[in-house]
Amino acid sequence: MLKPVVDPLPSWQEGKVKQRIIEFVQQVTDESSIHYVVPENRIATFDNDGTLMVEKPVMAQVAYFKRKLLNAEVINTKSKWLRIAHWIKSLFFDLFGFIRLLLTLWRRGMTTEQYRASVARWIAQAKHPRFGKKYTELVYKPMLEVLQYFEANDFKNYIVTGSTANFVRPWSQDVYQVSVNRVIGSSLKTKLSLRSGQLDIMLEPLPFSIENRATKVLSIERRIAKRPIAAFGNSYGDVDMLRWTRNSHSSLCVLIHHTDAEREYAYSPNTRFCFGTNTLDYAEQLQWQVVDMKQDWKTVF
Amino acid sequence: MLKPVVDPLPSWQEGKVKQRIIEFVQQVTDESSIHYVVPENRIATFDNDGTLMVEKPVMAQVAYFKRKLLNAEVINTKSKWLRIAHWIKSLFFDLFGFIRLLLTLWRRGMTTEQYRASVARWIAQAKHPRFGKKYTELVYKPMLEVLQYFEANDFKNYIVTGSTANFVRPWSQDVYQVSVNRVIGSSLKTKLSLRSGQLDIMLEPLPFSIENRATKVLSIERRIAKRPIAAFGNSYGDVDMLRWTRNSHSSLCVLIHHTDAEREYAYSPNTRFCFGTNTLDYAEQLQWQVVDMKQDWKTVF
Repeated sequence: MLKPVVDPLPSWQEGKVKQRIIEFVQQVTDESSIHYVVPENRIATFDNDGTLMVEKPVMAQVAYFKRKLLNAEVINTKSKWLRIAHWIKSLFFDLFGFIRLLLTLWRRGMTTEQYRASVARWIAQAKHPRFGKKYTELVYKPMLEVLQYFEANDFKNYIVTGSTANFVRPWSQDVYQVSVNRVIGSSLKTKLSLRSGQLDIMLEPLPFSIENRATKVLSIERRIAKRPIAAFGNSYGDVDMLRWTRNSHSSLCVLIHHTDAEREYAYSPNTRFCFGTNTLDYAEQLQWQVVDMKQDWKTVF
Repeated sequence: MLKPVVDPLPSWQEGKVKQRIIEFVQQVTDESSIHYVVPENRIATFDNDGTLMVEKPVMAQVAYFKRKLLNAEVINTKSKWLRIAHWIKSLFFDLFGFIRLLLTLWRRGMTTEQYRASVARWIAQAKHPRFGKKYTELVYKPMLEVLQYFEANDFKNYIVTGSTANFVRPWSQDVYQVSVNRVIGSSLKTKLSLRSGQLDIMLEPLPFSIENRATKVLSIERRIAKRPIAAFGNSYGDVDMLRWTRNSHSSLCVLIHHTDAEREYAYSPNTRFCFGTNTLDYAEQLQWQVVDMKQDWKTVF
């Protein structure tokens, strides 16, 4: 393998994963390689929360809902009893707030443009409870390098997120250099509304799609009609997307494993109630690259 | 208005519509104009059937269903009695064929890839009943010139079709230079299926979305999260899309009116049962450009 003159991934420790990413990019862009892929098929999909951006104690989308719409605080404490007390309190707050949110959408309505504007205002000032930084500053530097490295090699990077697409769109271009039309995410139902001669698109308080597990795959196919050749995820919800990514040597499947309680968080890629195969077992069986955050990343943010 | 050195629309008769299209492109691409639009917002949306491609006697998608899945012929005759006889016959055939189609999808299943491959094979050889040419040869030359003219001026052209997206994708790049991810269309529900270790996406015999009228607008917004600055349609089903296109001088709304029974077909832009405002009345009220096919187009195909 030829070493690139300039290191495209300076925040990555030298090791198996970094080596495989560079080898993969070199193979699929080398016309003389049997793994060569034409530029229009160089599709890469990235989960957002936990893959590109911190998702603990709660995902940015949830923090936004809580603070903006439910007026509740996100708590981050190590005391078990405080956490339980908060959980009971927030259960009532959430229920109450959730009903209020539904009523607001039903009665007063909100356009998709208003929602995006509201997110843009919130994300410009909201601070993460532990790190005291903006959420957009809590994206993983090693992953930004991957996005940029792919982009420079004519990949089309897509974000496929369980958060609403319109939550990510207001800042995806600035932060990830991913344009709004390459963001695939959950969404509410919408309806066209004509008020005093002006057409608007109103959000309705019913889900249209929730992007998780198989739905991520179906949405990618519905949108792009191609299999990605690279996919990055961090949880059980990303397993189907990684499995569906083209299954050959000219594909790259990466699972981010959160192992660094000190610099970020340490947690399992499984959901709380995981009855199926363990996510890490899938990674081993299907020979995915597993990023050990503590070992593989020189810098996190 | 500066005249371009090379005529970008040679198949268009000199006239109001051609002049407005050229003026529009010059304004939105001229940084010194108050109508200037940055390249990433130069979104243009095009209906397919009747706007870019012949849709009579039936749309290509319907001809495909009839011939491929229902084994029926498309009839094109001027005799009223023959047409009625055919209509009665096809009613039974369609019902029978439709049930057979549903049973096939349910019992044997079809992947989205198989569907696209089947369309690709069909469209490569199927002939239009009147013109005896392939459907992909029956696209409107003047509209191909518009697509190319827009593309050359950094527009992003999207096709928004009532046909299934996967019916248009196999040939959209070759015929329109529109890539598969820029085709928005109707679709069936899908499900992820794991068979002998291989993941596939199976079509289900239930609609997921039917792109017509308001749904076209909602799907564009869901996908692109931007208002188009140009939209082309030909029927009542496109009225909402044209209305929603940015409502300012730096937008272009064009309605293709089929007035040429000799070279193509002559028919109303309304649906058969039109209770609301007439499509042409909308065009007049909202000052859209109306293409009179007979007058405005030197060549049709």
